[in-house]
Amino acid sequence: MKVAVSREENFNAAHRLFNPAWTDEKNDAVFGKCNNPNFHGHNYRLIVTVVGDPDPSTGYVMDLKTLSELINDKVLRQFDHKNLNLDSPHFRRLNPTAENIAVVIWNILRKELDIHLELKIKLYETERNFVEYPAH
Amino acid sequence: MKVAVSREENFNAAHRLFNPAWTDEKNDAVFGKCNNPNFHGHNYRLIVTVVGDPDPSTGYVMDLKTLSELINDKVLRQFDHKNLNLDSPHFRRLNPTAENIAVVIWNILRKELDIHLELKIKLYETERNFVEYPAH
Amino acid sequence: MKVAVSREENFNAAHRLFNPAWTDEKNDAVFGKCNNPNFHGHNYRLIVTVVGDPDPSTGYVMDLKTLSELINDKVLRQFDHKNLNLDSPHFRRLNPTAENIAVVIWNILRKELDIHLELKIKLYETERNFVEYPAH
Amino acid sequence: MKVAVSREENFNAAHRLFNPAWTDEKNDAVFGKCNNPNFHGHNYRLIVTVVGDPDPSTGYVMDLKTLSELINDKVLRQFDHKNLNLDSPHFRRLNPTAENIAVVIWNILRKELDIHLELKIKLYETERNFVEYPAH
Amino acid sequence: MKVAVSREENFNAAHRLFNPAWTDEKNDAVFGKCNNPNFHGHNYRLIVTVVGDPDPSTGYVMDLKTLSELINDKVLRQFDHKNLNLDSPHFRRLNPTAENIAVVIWNILRKELDIHLELKIKLYETERNFVEYPAH
Amino acid sequence: MKVAVSREENFNAAHRLFNPAWTDEKNDAVFGKCNNPNFHGHNYRLIVTVVGDPDPSTGYVMDLKTLSELINDKVLRQFDHKNLNLDSPHFRRLNPTAENIAVVIWNILRKELDIHLELKIKLYETERNFVEYPAH
Repeated sequence: MKVAVSREENFNAAHRLFNPAWTDEKNDAVFGKCNNPNFHGHNYRLIVTVVGDPDPSTGYVMDLKTLSELINDKVLRQFDHKNLNLDSPHFRRLNPTAENIAVVIWNILRKELDIHLELKIKLYETERNFVEYPAH
Repeated sequence: MKVAVSREENFNAAHRLFNPAWTDEKNDAVFGKCNNPNFHGHNYRLIVTVVGDPDPSTGYVMDLKTLSELINDKVLRQFDHKNLNLDSPHFRRLNPTAENIAVVIWNILRKELDIHLELKIKLYETERNFVEYPAH
Repeated sequence: MKVAVSREENFNAAHRLFNPAWTDEKNDAVFGKCNNPNFHGHNYRLIVTVVGDPDPSTGYVMDLKTLSELINDKVLRQFDHKNLNLDSPHFRRLNPTAENIAVVIWNILRKELDIHLELKIKLYETERNFVEYPAH
Repeated sequence: MKVAVSREENFNAAHRLFNPAWTDEKNDAVFGKCNNPNFHGHNYRLIVTVVGDPDPSTGYVMDLKTLSELINDKVLRQFDHKNLNLDSPHFRRLNPTAENIAVVIWNILRKELDIHLELKIKLYETERNFVEYPAH
Repeated sequence: MKVAVSREENFNAAHRLFNPAWTDEKNDAVFGKCNNPNFHGHNYRLIVTVVGDPDPSTGYVMDLKTLSELINDKVLRQFDHKNLNLDSPHFRRLNPTAENIAVVIWNILRKELDIHLELKIKLYETERNFVEYPAH
Repeated sequence: MKVAVSREENFNAAHRLFNPAWTDEKNDAVFGKCNNPNFHGHNYRLIVTVVGDPDPSTGYVMDLKTLSELINDKVLRQFDHKNLNLDSPHFRRLNPTAENIAVVIWNILRKELDIHLELKIKLYETERNFVEYPAH
């Protein structure tokens, strides 16, 4: 049976939810106050989980210090204290919902990890709203 | 791969654990101080998870504001600031353990959600005791 | 300068807020859903703070294990898994608001502690509602 | 002795820290990544404390439902899902640091409360950074 | 569908991470400050999850009081306020990483539980680092 | 009125509580399992509060990034992943209770801060046990 190891990191970002193909009225109806054209923001809590077999010589699935550095280098450096819509190429055309941010982060980190390790992302947008990808 | 989205809501309720088919002695032996006939109570933390594919036009699996309203309307309105044993028809004959409350909430919400969406319930009775349904 | 030491304990209780001198209409208007005659309940988080000088031979203001046992013996034994209105003589005539519960607990513990130690009570009724006595 | 009652509310906002009287270089040196001209954001946790004597007929210093509605009406309606620099007249000339936001909120709520009640503000900008006003 | 019930307990322990087959230089390179020969320590948060069918006569998958007593008797009695490397036979030859501690706890509790109940362990070494076994 | 600004940092350390002037029997009677000669450990949550007037040109009482760096440089570098009894000169003769650790940290940081700024320390040894210095 495999072991899952998880590391939590945080980033603080501004964003706006809207679909540029829609009218202002439709965006307001669907996204409400999240559609503020001047943006709003969140403290995102990001939990990255890696699943694998512990290395018998270290007892680690993966050194969580290494995982923390990877998340900082590849994810936080481009998202922390940024405007997701304006500062990140990932969200030029993609609406920065928590669902889409989680999938983007999964795609960024997937290519950095050993193919034998499984990867899961949990992202809290607020204390009471969060998403997980993949779902299982 | 699908995405899971979750919303936390809270309700504060009184309850008593006992089996009416048993003697007082057996109820005391099995349920201890949870069997107080004058009731005790909890702040229940309820986390409702919905699994599905994000809609490409919104980036949402489901608008969490809609999910919050649904939980408030269908669950909290009948459980918050209530006595689960006396005020709710669900627990006339069913012991209001955290396990049973979670299954009741799943049954209530299941019929409100699109058939393509998967539903999971996590319920904290105290900070250190919680249940999940279904388990996987 | 003195040091404050604090211990958190928890109790789960049912209660109802109302003033028996008032009509049902006035109680409903003032206390709303907290006035449910069948009771509701909470997980109360209780933080007891004792202020004094550390004993040079132990480095303790007061052994927090002793404080924990005191809280369990004098407070939790009469409030945990109880109905505050029905099971406690303290609330026969006193409305069990968080304010009043905190003052009652302060009065109970004050007589158990050395006169040279200052005592403060913090009581969370929910995650978002809490009281402190004395206020400063 | 008086009792303190507290209510926590949350708002999610974008902001940028800078002093318009300074050069870009000086703003970068002082405010670092908080000076991103495209803004970043936070989930602000706001705890409002009111100190007074419990009313003998209710047991309340102040009904926390009333305090919650006041915070929502007077503070959250103008700050939640907003850009503090662009959307709020309070921060046209005032840098929206946590310190300044707390003082602004205190000034807003002070005029809404009975003169006999003392008011304190605690504001978390992140899980690990927070401010209190007044300090004592 | 089955229900999962979980109980959180805590233990405070010292440990040191190293591989006795390696040189000091290699241990320093791999384990860094976790390799301090004088030990360091953690407050471990342990969440034990048991999956099964609720008993129709009690509404319990398993009485969480019983589970709490089992964890205290079989796990905390040997790990709480101990030095994992020096005081526990489990870690004489096994490096006490969070991964290995979780597997050891699973093996201890597995033999105490009914064969029809599934068992899962979640162990927080710090607020931001945690492991789960089995991973799914 | 002044503003208080606070920064939370964490360190993980081993310690043992005992008085070398006492017999083993007396140390066991007073300190119980905290007297394990092989040490145990904690994740300490340290909250450092600085009180002063916000600088009108920045809106800061003190840049919390500067405060964080100061805590890391002066406190965490000597306490994190250390054995407080064996690795720190502060606790050669002083029992490393939470009370004494808080006073030591206050003395370390006091000399690093502007004389016009007031300093307060809050230290969680566990989730449920914490100390504050000075108490008011």
